[in-house]
Amino acid sequence: MSAAIKIGIVGYGNLGRGVVSAIGQNPDMELVGVFTRREPASFGSEGGLTFLHVSDLEGYKDRIDVLILCGGSATDLPEQGPFFSKSFNTVDSFDTHAKIPEYFEQVNDSALTAGKVAVISTGWDPGLFSINRLMAESILSEGTDYTFWGKGVSQGHSDAIRRVQGVKGGVQYTVPVNEVIDQIRQGQTPELSTRQKHLRQCFVVAQEGADQEQIRQEIVSMPNYFSDYDTTVTFISEEELRRDHSQMPHGGFVIRSGVTGTNTRQIIEYSLKLESNPEFTASVLVAYARAAYRLNKEGASGAKTVFDIAPGYLSPKSAAQLRKELL
Amino acid sequence: MSAAIKIGIVGYGNLGRGVVSAIGQNPDMELVGVFTRREPASFGSEGGLTFLHVSDLEGYKDRIDVLILCGGSATDLPEQGPFFSKSFNTVDSFDTHAKIPEYFEQVNDSALTAGKVAVISTGWDPGLFSINRLMAESILSEGTDYTFWGKGVSQGHSDAIRRVQGVKGGVQYTVPVNEVIDQIRQGQTPELSTRQKHLRQCFVVAQEGADQEQIRQEIVSMPNYFSDYDTTVTFISEEELRRDHSQMPHGGFVIRSGVTGTNTRQIIEYSLKLESNPEFTASVLVAYARAAYRLNKEGASGAKTVFDIAPGYLSPKSAAQLRKELL
Repeated sequence: MSAAIKIGIVGYGNLGRGVVSAIGQNPDMELVGVFTRREPASFGSEGGLTFLHVSDLEGYKDRIDVLILCGGSATDLPEQGPFFSKSFNTVDSFDTHAKIPEYFEQVNDSALTAGKVAVISTGWDPGLFSINRLMAESILSEGTDYTFWGKGVSQGHSDAIRRVQGVKGGVQYTVPVNEVIDQIRQGQTPELSTRQKHLRQCFVVAQEGADQEQIRQEIVSMPNYFSDYDTTVTFISEEELRRDHSQMPHGGFVIRSGVTGTNTRQIIEYSLKLESNPEFTASVLVAYARAAYRLNKEGASGAKTVFDIAPGYLSPKSAAQLRKELL
Repeated sequence: MSAAIKIGIVGYGNLGRGVVSAIGQNPDMELVGVFTRREPASFGSEGGLTFLHVSDLEGYKDRIDVLILCGGSATDLPEQGPFFSKSFNTVDSFDTHAKIPEYFEQVNDSALTAGKVAVISTGWDPGLFSINRLMAESILSEGTDYTFWGKGVSQGHSDAIRRVQGVKGGVQYTVPVNEVIDQIRQGQTPELSTRQKHLRQCFVVAQEGADQEQIRQEIVSMPNYFSDYDTTVTFISEEELRRDHSQMPHGGFVIRSGVTGTNTRQIIEYSLKLESNPEFTASVLVAYARAAYRLNKEGASGAKTVFDIAPGYLSPKSAAQLRKELL
């Protein structure tokens, strides 16, 4: 085996922790350090890791093969993606769908100039789900596509709940409507409104003395977040919130129902059932870090998405081994 | 839109017919002709198609962009793959797993010398299932993999039934054991024997006066084909065989159940539910014909498998359009 791929991590939230763990599961990878904007010393020797300040990255240009960017899409990545791809091969999970084309262009400029590979917008959606949408549409050119998410915690919706007056804490689950998924699996291709595809379940801790009915009303009628959905609000104690709702499960389904020949029905389905959304996303990022490293070794540069990367690059196995064992 | 991709088909069985139909669903493709070893005139003007003899292909080198080889893996493709990739970009569905490495080398030699691209062993297994095995294993490096087939007609097993003395006709369905799949979906990772994964259901037409019990015994005890499985044999009439068993449904599941972090369970599942196996396989071949054409245009040559081809090549849409619409 050749030398391990040297990985740097920027950001140490849930995703960054997941990447640390995933690197430990892949013997062809080695963690150089975790780079943070906080005071590195504040982490002590947590997990036996090396913490460094992001401003030190400059000195690591020749010591890191791929930098995995674990910041958020709202404010971190729009700065970090274009900046770090000037010096490193990078991988990120930028997921603001509407801004992907613009983000791609910026990162592409940096990475092309630097001769580096920057894999953007990977994870499971965008990422694995996108690949499945593309492949299913390319194979069944006449058909209907469905993406369902959940059951899983939506961070954005949970934040929205917590901003309601009188709310002390809470969490929101996006729940796909299984009856509809079953219909599609049976070959039906219904046109579905937002309300028919997903439910929203809120678990809320109210402040002492708060009017629960008023909180409920405010949540279910909130535009963009809840008003287009059937939303349930269940009041629970702080203890229950901590005990029963501290995990971050997620998942979902991509289904294409198409026809070939004379109305022959063909159904392709891809699904994920995840006990931890950030740990799974991290595992996807690490596999794409391997791809970024190998593509760059072969002379590739510029921004890449999951659409641009052949599956074989994700595996530590050789092409001959893959043909023999997995084809 | 640029000029259509010009496709030739070699072989006009179920798969070849499926390819004709799939080309009709893809406006960026155009069928030049169907090449057969039989007497082309014997097809008349079936489906308004142009039938030509395979020996005429020589004259079509500059008039066909991609040749889709629709022969069988036992005797047709081992000859046709290495031969036609000397003159054309090709796509085939070679599925004799044990011989793939050898077949790859032969086709690769021809295609490299000719400067052509030859996509081998595509379809759904090998093909889409292989991609999913590879990606799931690369992402969840600690885990267990399961592939189930069916419910679907197995041609090889149906042929085996028909060779039994006293049998006039018959068909065999491979049926996955759903209880086991449900266990795996719930997070269990059982070690499964052959018998625990699939059942075999045989529908048999006996010759007049034949001993049905003897036929049943001979089928269920047949080594390699049936003896390792729970096999049911149901005797039916010729009329029932024609009426109820003339379709070629198939499908299956690829499931990987893995762990990340501290024993966090993550499950990836890919499944197909197909009313027609050959029509679906044909649709996959046609999407990969697009990829072969584009890769060759970019200067690539040699044998390729689904592992070597980035998803974006399968779609008629531009990379920018894919990022905007499907990522």
